[in-house]
Amino acid sequence: MENDTWVVGLDIGGTKLLAGVLNKKGDIAATAKLPTKAATGFENGRKRIVEVIRSAVAAAGMTMEKISAIGVGSPGPLDLAKGTVIETPNLKWKNAPVRGVIEDAFGKPVKIDNDVNAGTLGEFTFGAGIGAQHVIGLFVGTGLGGGVIINGKLLHGFNQNAAEFGHVIINPKGPKCGCGVKGHLEAYVAKSGIERKLRKYIQRGKDTSLASILANGKQPLKSSVIAKAYKNNDKIVVKTINRSAEYLGYAVANFLNIFNPEIVILGGGLVEAFGDMYVTRVTKVATANVFPVALRNVQIAKAQLGDNAGILGASVLAFEALG
Amino acid sequence: MENDTWVVGLDIGGTKLLAGVLNKKGDIAATAKLPTKAATGFENGRKRIVEVIRSAVAAAGMTMEKISAIGVGSPGPLDLAKGTVIETPNLKWKNAPVRGVIEDAFGKPVKIDNDVNAGTLGEFTFGAGIGAQHVIGLFVGTGLGGGVIINGKLLHGFNQNAAEFGHVIINPKGPKCGCGVKGHLEAYVAKSGIERKLRKYIQRGKDTSLASILANGKQPLKSSVIAKAYKNNDKIVVKTINRSAEYLGYAVANFLNIFNPEIVILGGGLVEAFGDMYVTRVTKVATANVFPVALRNVQIAKAQLGDNAGILGASVLAFEALG
Repeated sequence: MENDTWVVGLDIGGTKLLAGVLNKKGDIAATAKLPTKAATGFENGRKRIVEVIRSAVAAAGMTMEKISAIGVGSPGPLDLAKGTVIETPNLKWKNAPVRGVIEDAFGKPVKIDNDVNAGTLGEFTFGAGIGAQHVIGLFVGTGLGGGVIINGKLLHGFNQNAAEFGHVIINPKGPKCGCGVKGHLEAYVAKSGIERKLRKYIQRGKDTSLASILANGKQPLKSSVIAKAYKNNDKIVVKTINRSAEYLGYAVANFLNIFNPEIVILGGGLVEAFGDMYVTRVTKVATANVFPVALRNVQIAKAQLGDNAGILGASVLAFEALG
Repeated sequence: MENDTWVVGLDIGGTKLLAGVLNKKGDIAATAKLPTKAATGFENGRKRIVEVIRSAVAAAGMTMEKISAIGVGSPGPLDLAKGTVIETPNLKWKNAPVRGVIEDAFGKPVKIDNDVNAGTLGEFTFGAGIGAQHVIGLFVGTGLGGGVIINGKLLHGFNQNAAEFGHVIINPKGPKCGCGVKGHLEAYVAKSGIERKLRKYIQRGKDTSLASILANGKQPLKSSVIAKAYKNNDKIVVKTINRSAEYLGYAVANFLNIFNPEIVILGGGLVEAFGDMYVTRVTKVATANVFPVALRNVQIAKAQLGDNAGILGASVLAFEALG
């Protein structure tokens, strides 16, 4: 019976909207995708959100009556009480009433949380974190985001802004982050920081097979492109990626000493493009820099759900909205 | 009626044992002190623990029958399930059954937690954290310890070893910590690190009014002695203390972005010796390096309970043991 209650999980990304129709077991009946086109403003975003939800439900061969609730993962910071996006550099939406517009469009219960929390919740419920009660999710792509589960519950904090792991200082005298502060983890580990570091090498006259793509400069480097250069032993790419893994290792050591979780899950486009080699490097640095007691029976593992982590986590939010 | 239920709160420190008799309001009927003499082993420690508890109860003009429960703050790492000290550099006790020996001696419910958690719980319940539900305690003395309260509950983590804030890497290429890892917060902020830095300055031929005390080298520098040298404008002391405050500021920014608490409470011998000037410096660096949303209505404040934070927090543990 329970497996015949269906919800929509929506993952709002900087470039694409992904909606899925799921039951409580995490079965995905169907999904639908749509470019976010965030730059066109929230009124257009609202229409696209409604459209992608309708498309997913239609693709599942269902009507909206069959859908009990909708869960949403969105870039933040969010105001969870109001259900709004306060502001987000990725989407350029400001005070956008994401929850409200979905409630208005469909008249269903809606629950929203930030995208990385949704991804962490997905891995916790259906992926690498199954069975654990203390989970940290670290997702590395263009930026670096984190989610924390303590005693089976997401950590939100006083202003619902906890787990901003990309903007943790790992060296106060280090390179500038996109946000302007020096030595943030994101500046060492994520694609935005990797790209800046590669550009510095090029300025200093070093050669890399990525030089022409970087000179072109319109779009962010794809993780797969960086991984190919790494495989071809492009020296400065190897150096930069190894540094990324090294600094993520220091950060994982820190999060182990800070939260003492049961599992740290590493995911996101960059981790997936480099796979086990990257996770092994991170693990080696982390275990060398943490108290033994914070490592006892603790795992550092690769995420298992790939692109679907967000909609799977959002479906958990939807079932929470049902109470 | 409730104010006539009395418990003992015991604070086990590296140099002294402090026991108090308290009620639920945090009224302290009496206290007693005894040197820990940890180096003489746990069997002697056990006797001293029993003695200091008896002394506090006698000083309050009570008998043990009047005491309902006993709470204990102890250096860790602890095994909370077994009630043992696993190991602690400060006390040189190993697998010491602290809870068991107190239960055996008095036949009362006993609850134990680590010393910094107890201090944080004290400030949360009776001090700077009153009214807040998301609290971080940072205590700076010879070492640096932390405690975290989320939704009114202490964070323990999977192996009960969360909040090891002294051993968070703030610069992977930084100075070595006492534990051997490079760039830990403790190495920049706490007295152990300050002392090492001052010795380095002296080796490089710099002069300081603390040179003779450091050359003597038997006992750790007292915070009050360092504060006096700072006041007298001892250049390398000023530089080293300002660096301590600066790096604690970076760390506070990190903890705000990581936990998004309602209040960060700064306490411990070093903070108390330097007072508002130090807290102001920390606050300035922290607020310059954190996301505005993680600062909204958030306080960074000095601890209020001084040496009594530990026994006050331990008394809360005792009342928890009563259920």
